[in-house]
Amino acid sequence: MPVCGVPDNLYVGREYEKGTQDLRGLLKGASDAKFDFVVVSLFEKPRADKPYDHEGQYELQPSTISDLSLDSKTWSSAVVGKLSDCVNMAEAYTPAARERCRQAFEQELAWASHLGVYGIVLPPPQDASCHLYAAALGRVGLSGICTSQLMIRIPLLQEQVGVQVDGWNTWNRCRLLCDQSARLQVALELTADLPETDMELQRWLAEPVRAVFVPADSFLTNKQGFPVLSKRHKSFLMQLFRNKVQIILQGLPEGPGSEGETDKYLHYTARLFQSRPAPTPQEQFELPYHDYLQAPLQPLQDNLESQTYETFEKDPVKYVQYEEATFRCMQDKLALGKKNIVVMVVGAGRGPLVVAVRSAASRAGADVKIWAVEKNPNAVVTLKHRKLLEGWGNVEVVSEDMRYWDAPAKADIIVSELLGSFGDNELSPECLDGAQRFLAEDGACIPCKCTSFLTPVTTTKLWNDVKNYNDVAHFETAYVVKFHQAFYPTSDI
Amino acid sequence: MPVCGVPDNLYVGREYEKGTQDLRGLLKGASDAKFDFVVVSLFEKPRADKPYDHEGQYELQPSTISDLSLDSKTWSSAVVGKLSDCVNMAEAYTPAARERCRQAFEQELAWASHLGVYGIVLPPPQDASCHLYAAALGRVGLSGICTSQLMIRIPLLQEQVGVQVDGWNTWNRCRLLCDQSARLQVALELTADLPETDMELQRWLAEPVRAVFVPADSFLTNKQGFPVLSKRHKSFLMQLFRNKVQIILQGLPEGPGSEGETDKYLHYTARLFQSRPAPTPQEQFELPYHDYLQAPLQPLQDNLESQTYETFEKDPVKYVQYEEATFRCMQDKLALGKKNIVVMVVGAGRGPLVVAVRSAASRAGADVKIWAVEKNPNAVVTLKHRKLLEGWGNVEVVSEDMRYWDAPAKADIIVSELLGSFGDNELSPECLDGAQRFLAEDGACIPCKCTSFLTPVTTTKLWNDVKNYNDVAHFETAYVVKFHQAFYPTSDI
Repeated sequence: MPVCGVPDNLYVGREYEKGTQDLRGLLKGASDAKFDFVVVSLFEKPRADKPYDHEGQYELQPSTISDLSLDSKTWSSAVVGKLSDCVNMAEAYTPAARERCRQAFEQELAWASHLGVYGIVLPPPQDASCHLYAAALGRVGLSGICTSQLMIRIPLLQEQVGVQVDGWNTWNRCRLLCDQSARLQVALELTADLPETDMELQRWLAEPVRAVFVPADSFLTNKQGFPVLSKRHKSFLMQLFRNKVQIILQGLPEGPGSEGETDKYLHYTARLFQSRPAPTPQEQFELPYHDYLQAPLQPLQDNLESQTYETFEKDPVKYVQYEEATFRCMQDKLALGKKNIVVMVVGAGRGPLVVAVRSAASRAGADVKIWAVEKNPNAVVTLKHRKLLEGWGNVEVVSEDMRYWDAPAKADIIVSELLGSFGDNELSPECLDGAQRFLAEDGACIPCKCTSFLTPVTTTKLWNDVKNYNDVAHFETAYVVKFHQAFYPTSDI
Repeated sequence: MPVCGVPDNLYVGREYEKGTQDLRGLLKGASDAKFDFVVVSLFEKPRADKPYDHEGQYELQPSTISDLSLDSKTWSSAVVGKLSDCVNMAEAYTPAARERCRQAFEQELAWASHLGVYGIVLPPPQDASCHLYAAALGRVGLSGICTSQLMIRIPLLQEQVGVQVDGWNTWNRCRLLCDQSARLQVALELTADLPETDMELQRWLAEPVRAVFVPADSFLTNKQGFPVLSKRHKSFLMQLFRNKVQIILQGLPEGPGSEGETDKYLHYTARLFQSRPAPTPQEQFELPYHDYLQAPLQPLQDNLESQTYETFEKDPVKYVQYEEATFRCMQDKLALGKKNIVVMVVGAGRGPLVVAVRSAASRAGADVKIWAVEKNPNAVVTLKHRKLLEGWGNVEVVSEDMRYWDAPAKADIIVSELLGSFGDNELSPECLDGAQRFLAEDGACIPCKCTSFLTPVTTTKLWNDVKNYNDVAHFETAYVVKFHQAFYPTSDI
């Protein structure tokens, strides 16, 4: 049973180092200890007298004997299978031996697919260049023999030929060599030593990390003798929780009498997960929009719907600031001796700016005439209704496109909220330029200018979504996105 | 709150005949009476002095005043809006008047879209030919102004220019004129009189009926004074429930003191819905496959997965019959004085036929040698394991393709289960033909022949799914389908 949380639950698995022929018994034990799934090797180590570079036909050695060990529902919900090290081509010095390794890899993948296991874990690439590893992956793993997702196990820090390397570089190289296949995921191993900078940790947050191996030896022991994680380990894990990772506890004590020890690790993990603050209503509302490509609104071309107006009107900051700006502008006008102020709200929608202007006028004690110009006939229905219902005596509702409206007077103040998510993507210059005709010579526009900001971002999920369209156009399209699994590689300028 | 049921709930709405400006009050009343949504006219009737054929600009008359009457969540979950009769072009005798009707229709649709209502209901076509109605629909309703589904209200029997016509013909004509748009749905009106034959009722079960209007005057009064439906009405409604329709009670008594009366109708409907028998485990299992195009398996090209074998092996009839057939065949052989019987199971999978043959042999007291030929190496792992575990002393597992296998003996009996869903769609002739080589001259094949059956079927949902591929190839492709919303227009031959 998963660890309950809001908005999602945590699934915790346990890795067993030794193979077993009694998979059912193993699962029973893990389930009794409240683990959700187990991680086991699906294959026997090749016998010393028959290594991969042995001559002749390779013969598959499933460690779990046959698929009948479990029913298919259990295979697909409770067993994550590890493949052998053959994909690393270790010690395969001849082309024939390499071919044999690839054969072994192909048969292993086919068997794992046949079982329909919950997850497939590939061993960490042993060679920094990843060439042979990625070639085997591309030719076999991603070619159609198996259609499941594949997790590559990547330690945060890895010893490779005597040098300590950052696992992200290995993953990145491997991923690039496999043409960024969306079927590759990461099973990240939380090593006892972490990379030096937080930047090196943070960039994992944009990667497709599906599971995190937490080895028993990455835990410290606190004064009470309980296993705990260091502050840095803890905070990194908390960030990973936000990306809905699964946890796999690794290297726990095995054998009779070890249940109590094991339980401490699981308990600590569950408590850590549940210590996350509950999401605010705002965060809850945003959940379904995380990392999802949204087409920007086209309010000039399409009439907005009632629901869209309603969402915009909920903005807790914007209209307060608009009222304040309009209030000050009116004070300036009054100070210059102006008696009657003409305000034009262009793109009035259902009236939030009209309300802000009326409220500013009443605070400033100004005598105003307001023109509410709106081209969406459905929003005009609402404006007219509010004029009646709320007694907007000084408001004239105009059902026109501001670009073509024949204004009966010059405006002292033009108020608009046409700005898009990024600068002018809702065509505000095209519309507002048409409205300049009726701005008085000493008139003011609110807002009078705007600035857009740019930053590069790493986001594997969205990049793949765009890539799936299979054309250049979508890479050159602007989207509105609530980023979640993202990494910002640069600091502010 | 919907009426609870298994596997789905029932949503019941109430239609109000009169327009109201107090929509909030209306909803409160309906909700207190336990209705899930209301059905109301979104527009005022055109004033007598300003009918649609009146000159000049048409001006929209929303009956609910403004979108601010309700919040958008309520609009989208609790209000079904009826459009006015303008789409029928009634009494629009001049081209100008028709243009005005289309304008009205366009503005009404735009307003309904703006509100984002839960459903949009168009009035029944008044003219049997449906030409003007469908033209307006095609030009306006399905052209992009609005992207919601549109329900056309269709009475089962309808008076048109003094003649009673079957509503299905009207719907069918309208649908064809609109190029079978998948955005058109039916709001079926259960009239007091029903079409004569059950065939005429049944064909509705293949149509996209989303809601059913049940008028108060289609109810009878039973001895206790309660409203009940006739047997035929009841049985038709029960069939419609299977297609997840919503119910709209129509013409209920309105005004103070009518709550008790109203409740009887709702109560009857809920009881009827809940009287459906609970689905069997088999039906539950099949639910997600209803009306879904599945590509047939390609067991020759792809190796089947463990889970697929597991599903097949659950067949409660097949293997019993195979055992029986093999048993009788063995008896025949024994009667002819045969001592040792050679049986070849070609396409043995994980062994269900091997078990059936072994069991038949033991019943017949026959001395058999069984060859289990299987080309999927993953299934061979299972076969070998079962041979060991279950002591299949008389079984030889052969990891070969039957088409190329060099059989060491001739078979007295060849047993296979390669048949696809429709005749030879899993390439059984291609495979079994290759196996004829090793059948003894007096040998028998089980099965020795097969027959496939064909029947035409009406299924709007699947037809649209195929049409969406936008090519001819998909119309000429064989699919495996569990039909649900379907109608079989012919009887057995």
